[in-house]
Amino acid sequence: MDFRIEKDTMGEVKVPANKLWGAQTERSRNNFKIGKPASMPLEIVYGFAYLKKAAAYTNCELGVLSEEKRDLIGKVCDEIIAGKHDTEFPLVIWQTGSGTQSNMNVNEVIANRAHQLAGKKIGEGDKTLQPNDDVNKSQSSNDTFPTGMHIAAYKKLVEVTIPGVEQLHKTLDAKAKAFDKVVKIGRTHLMDATPLTLGQEFSGYASQLEHGLAALKNTLPHLAEIALGGTAVGTGINTPKGYAPKVADYIAQFTGLPFITAHNKFEALAAHDAIVESHGALKQLAVSLNKIAHDIRMLASGPRSGIGEITIPANEPGSSIMPGKVNPTQCEALTMVCAQVIGNDMAIAVGGMQGHFELNVFKPVMAANFLESAELLGDACVSFEEHCAEGIQPNTEVIKKLVNNSLMLVTALNTKIGYYKAAEIANTAHENGTTLREEAVNLGYLTAEEFDAWVKPEDMVGR
Amino acid sequence: MDFRIEKDTMGEVKVPANKLWGAQTERSRNNFKIGKPASMPLEIVYGFAYLKKAAAYTNCELGVLSEEKRDLIGKVCDEIIAGKHDTEFPLVIWQTGSGTQSNMNVNEVIANRAHQLAGKKIGEGDKTLQPNDDVNKSQSSNDTFPTGMHIAAYKKLVEVTIPGVEQLHKTLDAKAKAFDKVVKIGRTHLMDATPLTLGQEFSGYASQLEHGLAALKNTLPHLAEIALGGTAVGTGINTPKGYAPKVADYIAQFTGLPFITAHNKFEALAAHDAIVESHGALKQLAVSLNKIAHDIRMLASGPRSGIGEITIPANEPGSSIMPGKVNPTQCEALTMVCAQVIGNDMAIAVGGMQGHFELNVFKPVMAANFLESAELLGDACVSFEEHCAEGIQPNTEVIKKLVNNSLMLVTALNTKIGYYKAAEIANTAHENGTTLREEAVNLGYLTAEEFDAWVKPEDMVGR
Amino acid sequence: MDFRIEKDTMGEVKVPANKLWGAQTERSRNNFKIGKPASMPLEIVYGFAYLKKAAAYTNCELGVLSEEKRDLIGKVCDEIIAGKHDTEFPLVIWQTGSGTQSNMNVNEVIANRAHQLAGKKIGEGDKTLQPNDDVNKSQSSNDTFPTGMHIAAYKKLVEVTIPGVEQLHKTLDAKAKAFDKVVKIGRTHLMDATPLTLGQEFSGYASQLEHGLAALKNTLPHLAEIALGGTAVGTGINTPKGYAPKVADYIAQFTGLPFITAHNKFEALAAHDAIVESHGALKQLAVSLNKIAHDIRMLASGPRSGIGEITIPANEPGSSIMPGKVNPTQCEALTMVCAQVIGNDMAIAVGGMQGHFELNVFKPVMAANFLESAELLGDACVSFEEHCAEGIQPNTEVIKKLVNNSLMLVTALNTKIGYYKAAEIANTAHENGTTLREEAVNLGYLTAEEFDAWVKPEDMVGR
Amino acid sequence: MDFRIEKDTMGEVKVPANKLWGAQTERSRNNFKIGKPASMPLEIVYGFAYLKKAAAYTNCELGVLSEEKRDLIGKVCDEIIAGKHDTEFPLVIWQTGSGTQSNMNVNEVIANRAHQLAGKKIGEGDKTLQPNDDVNKSQSSNDTFPTGMHIAAYKKLVEVTIPGVEQLHKTLDAKAKAFDKVVKIGRTHLMDATPLTLGQEFSGYASQLEHGLAALKNTLPHLAEIALGGTAVGTGINTPKGYAPKVADYIAQFTGLPFITAHNKFEALAAHDAIVESHGALKQLAVSLNKIAHDIRMLASGPRSGIGEITIPANEPGSSIMPGKVNPTQCEALTMVCAQVIGNDMAIAVGGMQGHFELNVFKPVMAANFLESAELLGDACVSFEEHCAEGIQPNTEVIKKLVNNSLMLVTALNTKIGYYKAAEIANTAHENGTTLREEAVNLGYLTAEEFDAWVKPEDMVGR
Repeated sequence: MDFRIEKDTMGEVKVPANKLWGAQTERSRNNFKIGKPASMPLEIVYGFAYLKKAAAYTNCELGVLSEEKRDLIGKVCDEIIAGKHDTEFPLVIWQTGSGTQSNMNVNEVIANRAHQLAGKKIGEGDKTLQPNDDVNKSQSSNDTFPTGMHIAAYKKLVEVTIPGVEQLHKTLDAKAKAFDKVVKIGRTHLMDATPLTLGQEFSGYASQLEHGLAALKNTLPHLAEIALGGTAVGTGINTPKGYAPKVADYIAQFTGLPFITAHNKFEALAAHDAIVESHGALKQLAVSLNKIAHDIRMLASGPRSGIGEITIPANEPGSSIMPGKVNPTQCEALTMVCAQVIGNDMAIAVGGMQGHFELNVFKPVMAANFLESAELLGDACVSFEEHCAEGIQPNTEVIKKLVNNSLMLVTALNTKIGYYKAAEIANTAHENGTTLREEAVNLGYLTAEEFDAWVKPEDMVGR
Repeated sequence: MDFRIEKDTMGEVKVPANKLWGAQTERSRNNFKIGKPASMPLEIVYGFAYLKKAAAYTNCELGVLSEEKRDLIGKVCDEIIAGKHDTEFPLVIWQTGSGTQSNMNVNEVIANRAHQLAGKKIGEGDKTLQPNDDVNKSQSSNDTFPTGMHIAAYKKLVEVTIPGVEQLHKTLDAKAKAFDKVVKIGRTHLMDATPLTLGQEFSGYASQLEHGLAALKNTLPHLAEIALGGTAVGTGINTPKGYAPKVADYIAQFTGLPFITAHNKFEALAAHDAIVESHGALKQLAVSLNKIAHDIRMLASGPRSGIGEITIPANEPGSSIMPGKVNPTQCEALTMVCAQVIGNDMAIAVGGMQGHFELNVFKPVMAANFLESAELLGDACVSFEEHCAEGIQPNTEVIKKLVNNSLMLVTALNTKIGYYKAAEIANTAHENGTTLREEAVNLGYLTAEEFDAWVKPEDMVGR
Repeated sequence: MDFRIEKDTMGEVKVPANKLWGAQTERSRNNFKIGKPASMPLEIVYGFAYLKKAAAYTNCELGVLSEEKRDLIGKVCDEIIAGKHDTEFPLVIWQTGSGTQSNMNVNEVIANRAHQLAGKKIGEGDKTLQPNDDVNKSQSSNDTFPTGMHIAAYKKLVEVTIPGVEQLHKTLDAKAKAFDKVVKIGRTHLMDATPLTLGQEFSGYASQLEHGLAALKNTLPHLAEIALGGTAVGTGINTPKGYAPKVADYIAQFTGLPFITAHNKFEALAAHDAIVESHGALKQLAVSLNKIAHDIRMLASGPRSGIGEITIPANEPGSSIMPGKVNPTQCEALTMVCAQVIGNDMAIAVGGMQGHFELNVFKPVMAANFLESAELLGDACVSFEEHCAEGIQPNTEVIKKLVNNSLMLVTALNTKIGYYKAAEIANTAHENGTTLREEAVNLGYLTAEEFDAWVKPEDMVGR
Repeated sequence: MDFRIEKDTMGEVKVPANKLWGAQTERSRNNFKIGKPASMPLEIVYGFAYLKKAAAYTNCELGVLSEEKRDLIGKVCDEIIAGKHDTEFPLVIWQTGSGTQSNMNVNEVIANRAHQLAGKKIGEGDKTLQPNDDVNKSQSSNDTFPTGMHIAAYKKLVEVTIPGVEQLHKTLDAKAKAFDKVVKIGRTHLMDATPLTLGQEFSGYASQLEHGLAALKNTLPHLAEIALGGTAVGTGINTPKGYAPKVADYIAQFTGLPFITAHNKFEALAAHDAIVESHGALKQLAVSLNKIAHDIRMLASGPRSGIGEITIPANEPGSSIMPGKVNPTQCEALTMVCAQVIGNDMAIAVGGMQGHFELNVFKPVMAANFLESAELLGDACVSFEEHCAEGIQPNTEVIKKLVNNSLMLVTALNTKIGYYKAAEIANTAHENGTTLREEAVNLGYLTAEEFDAWVKPEDMVGR
């Protein structure tokens, strides 16, 4: 491979000749061979591109950067956001905990690419932009990385997670309405209970997601606070006056999202509670979705020896050995995602709790886990909606048979003959394998006519 | 021991003669010998007392319970809330997952105590109240337990957790103001960094708690939704018309807290996402408090061979073998509480994710973990505030020495001579064990006068 | 209340006159009002009693303590172990993280009780024993607390957890043998699959517990290593020559368990990986038991609208509103315990990872979570065995019907006619609601005689 | 893009013409657009290749597969293991929970590639091999996926994790010996304590890793048990007699690792406790490594205002804004890995606890988390060893100054003058800012000569 020489404050480094990155990126590549290469999420890189551009515009407006440099930086940032340099960010999550090396990776790529845009060859001639003094001007890794993290996290939530969950919510809500007249047996403790409608059952699922979405949206204002302007330790050293609010405005403008400057920059560098908070809501959604998906696969179990009250779409052969088998694979994909999100919540807590003094150095691992959860949840909800929820149909015959058979219809008699006599009827029918009606009459507690008038599943579902 | 005979639908049971509970409580006592006796939190029992009273008032108002029975039930509930029957609730968390047995424990105690209040002897004469038909009227374990759980959780948050965290927040905020002029070295990656004030450092702690309190308060509306009125499966079977909103009103009135009837009763029985959501905020507070407490013990480390920038109160001898040793014991108690809360968050997630069909049967374990976390966090914040935070004092001499010594003051020169020359100065001073000033002049990058004018810690803290 | 004055190196403290504890215990009581009083597990106190007695015997044997003092200390320790002083240990888990205050609580109680045994009144006359110089001789909190923790943990495992799990394992294994001929439908993805016997299904449960017990026993050697002899920082300062191995021998002798002196005392104070390791095995058991208990409640679901292949004992009325309902309450108690243990595992990890330099100060929270898990798992297995597993019976009629109905019997034809034709038969029967036999013949792939010869559930279970 | 038509039992599917996969892979690609493509770890694919080859050899030996087919399958498997078809496995973790689709992906690639090797064009002519009837012969996804998972997990542990941890252990052990004479201050509760040597401190780290490695190795026998031979539900339906042990032998032979057939196949499909168990040991290592790495960064903190007792290598510029800053980046990478592993442990527990009846459908998420943890831990230990631990050097001047200054040297006087007088000396010196020697003499408890004879740090480290 061809190399060129790049320098930083520690000396010279050989860098692949065809790459835009510089000395510090290359040092990091060599010093952190941990896991798969390039594991640092590209969303973080794009977040950096937004903020570097915003910083350049702010620096220019405040008189500390030339318009020419501003425009060059802005242009490269636009290219990065457009995905034109995705292969120029080879670093891993498992680097320095401030993400300094990814910040420098972005600084170096911008500086070298700007050099090209200025018509020069990398490594030749005076530097068009200095990575630290120009591209990183008025910034530190300590405030840029959390800013990039918040931009990436917020965007992922509003672009992937929330729309995905909303799409599933909408379908579950529609199913709740569509199944509103389907009276079925209820089950508590997995045991036969009093009836409800299939629509009511699905309304519970829809309600869980409504609450989950509300909880997630409650966390957005904290996530909208960005650290930029705090620089090294939160004091904003080396920033021009007025910088912090203005750079947040530019970021809001460039992203179209309501970012504001953090109320307290010391917190914004030293703690990432906004990530912990928002991911707590993702975990809540995972808890909800695990319940919903598991219910649906139990309802669809069978086809002949399970519960079988609903059918779900058959999307693929289910077994490599059992011919004709169809499985609730979308439920499985979704519940696996839930397991991952619950685990990620713990990784984020462990990172979040270990900030020290002016800096939390678990930024990359927190960011990566957050983005993974947010993406997986959104994608999995869409997949589950399209390939499963949308196609759910009641098996009305099975449903009818199961509800009519149920001993728990006896509950309707509590208010007529009291809990204790009702229990006697149910227990006797259970022991004898008979019907409630037979035993109610046998025991002399009511007439057959009374039974027929009082025990009607469709009257027990509470409208 | 003396016994009397109590009956339920399964037959006769011997119960200790001097106890108010009945057959089902005794069955549970015998069937669930798991862990310490009476582990079910009393707060849950009190929550039940509020709701039983509210149900009696609603049932009476809606014409299905006599005023006499209402008043008897109300009277016993008041006694329970006043703590007069604490020893009558012997059951454990590890019972049926719906908490049915604790519901029946309350029903039985109320019925038997009412019998006494009516001037009769337990087990003699006609029952004054039937546990199921009167005390439990218009109710099921499935809606009462989650209601009791929400009442207990909400009360604990507003009575213990929030005031405790607010007390600590207030003190940290006051310290932030008091230490506003104390310029000290910053530390990022645990390494010397640019200066800030001790007040700024503490303002970050205060800000974390502000955000945490806001996050916690965001979760209260979900927690204010109560399941009561859903009865067996969410349909409200066996409740009189208008029952659900009215009973919520009574609970709001009796507790003085803004409880409302749950928007969706099917969710309210089958999922406990409100508990997951609120506890997520408790976990966030634990994450924040772990950071704060650990910082404070590191700042106070020493007395001679640590960082020693602050002193904290010496409350007790610290060592059984090392004479004169004093330790940051309040920090340790608080961080241990944080570890517990983070673990409890996982227990709650594991319970919350496993609801099945119309019921989640992890109610008691979720409730117990929630209440433990809420109490421990509130108590620990108060203890930490009173015995530690309140007494924190800066060691100004140490602070001054450390900041003036720091090589990172060189950062002030970035905007004057550029990052690369500044780095050369710092590296040279580090290698030679000299001062920045000496090396700055030696290297010829600036004069001693310029150095003195430009490098002032007090100008680097960003006002 | 009456008080007496006690002193420590910080001065005088008023202590309840009728209590055996001294100044440091009282300070801790006042300084740590966090959660319920006396939450420090008594098992830890008993562990301390074993080690204090062992230390006294060793100190005496090595010539640094008189026989008279040794015998006094030994006598009080025996009283403590016999449970005679349980109310003298009022401290909470949430104290100093080294457990110093609980160590001093034990030292003070021993010293004062010895004073009584010596015929004197507490607070009068020369001290019979000095808490620090005599009772704590050759010890530090830093090595005593982890030693007490290991003693308590090891005892709980061998006295409660392992016997409890073994009792359940034995019954599941017996069921596996008893149900060996009961051919039933298999279920994968909760969907109908090829048959197996109910005995085979239960053999999987038994095998899980065998592996879990083996994993737990693998962790005992690490737990058998005790810190005593390390004193303040692991160097063993202020211990007589030969002390560490000898005191371990005494502990082994007094407890009847194979304790040995830790291979590395620095680790033994600064890290509690043995607790992490053993609790990892408890978590594994929780994971296994959650699977087993959930399977059993699904198999027992019904009675009429679930799977209903087995019946489990009806131990108590299941519902306060639905008469005659019986629920899988033991399964629920056990799975709630599993949720707790999984949460506790995280609390322990969070504590274990945060040791600093020569000491881990999360000892009490780690110990308390460990002991809770170990006790709950053992108790819950016994409860589940006695009140559920032991009484499990197959519903042979249901089982037979479900297996004969199954489309997955078609799998037996793979080796005769290939996967693809077999799939066609199954799919056709599913669409038409017919039998495999009908469609196999209709499609012309085999004769009815061949079908009857090849498709026999009892030949598909693999002996 | 060019397509060809592939078929499965559900009908026709368009597949990219240049790809080896078939209909079921393509269905999965389209049905599970969740997260990044091709997230299923290649290690699992390689594990499948080993087992497919082993199955072919066993099937041939037992007379159910021709030698010609065996050799074709074996040849393709060798190509897969050699990494020649890495781009042919496009599926994600978030598919069906049995991994059926990845099993079929392997079956289809083998069948199509064999067709090529047989000199034919894919899609033309009679199929050389049938994916289900030949490549999958005597197998099911339900036993192949867990087998592939165990092969991948075991290999990763012995090839990456264990060697990585051992490399770090060796260096820490060497440092322990090298620093054996460096007497330094101890710290408990982060506060000054009695002295120890730097070598002793490092010996604790080495000992933690020894215990962790032992714990990890204890889990290997469970992981060595493979499910293959269980087929659909554990009964081994459609396998020839003698298949299970023989296929395990072939896997052992091909991998060079001690795989054996699982003792109980029902467990082996329905539960993945071996994964839970082994990952528990990985979590223990993460707990240990977090402690070690955090200690080392605290010891190296400074350079001027921290503890500064050791220096670690300066591998890269530490700050984009603070010139000359060097950070403990390897400690940060390692502790971030620890956070991830602790989170992964929870994801694995959540998956492991939710097996249902004959199958656990969280296989892919469990496998992916396991492999990530095993790789990250191994890699991070190597990185930490090479770029940090190996280069650790004591700052002897700082160390000497700090230990000599320490008030906790007073502990040496306990056995001479008692704890209480020693405490008085330490407290007085602390208040007056004087030395222990001065105050000891002032207070009249000993002479200066006695002090000098008794209080020697080098005599307090316990040889």
